[in-house]
Amino acid sequence: MTDLAARIQVLEDKDAIRELTAKYCYAVVRQDCEALLKMFTDDGEFLMAPQFEFRGREQLAALYRDKIEEVAPKPFIQNHVIDVDGDQATGNCAVEIRLCAVEIRLVDAGQAVTACGHYNDVYRRVAGEWKFARRDFELYHWVSLAEGWAG
Amino acid sequence: MTDLAARIQVLEDKDAIRELTAKYCYAVVRQDCEALLKMFTDDGEFLMAPQFEFRGREQLAALYRDKIEEVAPKPFIQNHVIDVDGDQATGNCAVEIRLCAVEIRLVDAGQAVTACGHYNDVYRRVAGEWKFARRDFELYHWVSLAEGWAG
Amino acid sequence: MTDLAARIQVLEDKDAIRELTAKYCYAVVRQDCEALLKMFTDDGEFLMAPQFEFRGREQLAALYRDKIEEVAPKPFIQNHVIDVDGDQATGNCAVEIRLCAVEIRLVDAGQAVTACGHYNDVYRRVAGEWKFARRDFELYHWVSLAEGWAG
Repeated sequence: MTDLAARIQVLEDKDAIRELTAKYCYAVVRQDCEALLKMFTDDGEFLMAPQFEFRGREQLAALYRDKIEEVAPKPFIQNHVIDVDGDQATGNCAVEIRLCAVEIRLVDAGQAVTACGHYNDVYRRVAGEWKFARRDFELYHWVSLAEGWAG
Repeated sequence: MTDLAARIQVLEDKDAIRELTAKYCYAVVRQDCEALLKMFTDDGEFLMAPQFEFRGREQLAALYRDKIEEVAPKPFIQNHVIDVDGDQATGNCAVEIRLCAVEIRLVDAGQAVTACGHYNDVYRRVAGEWKFARRDFELYHWVSLAEGWAG
Repeated sequence: MTDLAARIQVLEDKDAIRELTAKYCYAVVRQDCEALLKMFTDDGEFLMAPQFEFRGREQLAALYRDKIEEVAPKPFIQNHVIDVDGDQATGNCAVEIRLCAVEIRLVDAGQAVTACGHYNDVYRRVAGEWKFARRDFELYHWVSLAEGWAG
């Protein structure tokens, strides 16, 4: 592979990874559990310390099949930074999420909730396709819209 | 055209299309109807089922000349996915919009409104320049900031 | 440099500049003054007419060391447009910011504040690295979340 081809490859990889995170958002909005699971490697993880961790396809299915419907999240991705190293990559992307509160949260059920934070992502190329090997969500705040993020 | 050149071309096309949607936002903020019209093909369309459809330059002019000033929208684009096929392309981009309510809406006039959704876009290259052939807006919610998107 | 290499270079430059603005956001969230200062050229400027201007490393240090902690901003970048011209570039990127009010503002201290606007940026390549030569912030609104942006 020539130097030019290698440079194009990195640009294409970063583009594919950005689109992976975008497609993830649309699949979350559609509450499309099957599509979401296919975006993870077989050993894929979704973490949000210290609240929870979902490791592997079975636990991820529980997350996406059971939890999403309750809160109907609408995620929006920004501030994407990606480092590609062959078939591995790491990255950060910020996210703003509009969702609805459920009783499990401290705020009242049925309220509009606004959350934001960023993902510490690990991506891996599997059979030519970029997937999430890990999404580690670092929360800035998760609050009712009525109360806001101050204080 | 070599294979490398073709790959660069796709990356450049996607970059140009992303910038088209960004420039659209700035033109909306400036309420620059002329700039907005130039971003559409002659047969360009803006749809939001089932509420309205604007087809062709004359109807689009009515949209951008008469409606924008009332609501002063500030749109922000995210989650962009693009498929390029020669001089045609399709894509999705999510949008968050801050605007002001007018009386035509059910919420009180003069209120802060927050909307989000995504565009199902069709892009076409005309004389070397990417334009919108269709923007089909799929609304997630359009609500007063005071009330929020739950319920 | 071949034509292909020049085209790849522009794509890489735009990618690096987009990541610069993203990394800026993460450094703001971390309140990492040292990292922020390194992202500016020695004669770098941050302007927001008519409220304030910070020119050069010493004034920028005052901005990032003293002001950020008070308001704890969480910025999110969108709508990025970039024109590269050799080692110079200009661009626009929109930003939504979640922050907390301090007493200097007209709204009450400790309130959730939401701001948005866009940067008129000037970027410069210094020793192979893209930096901000100027960030000129054009504010759309800076309001308490409780009051919103209408009226």
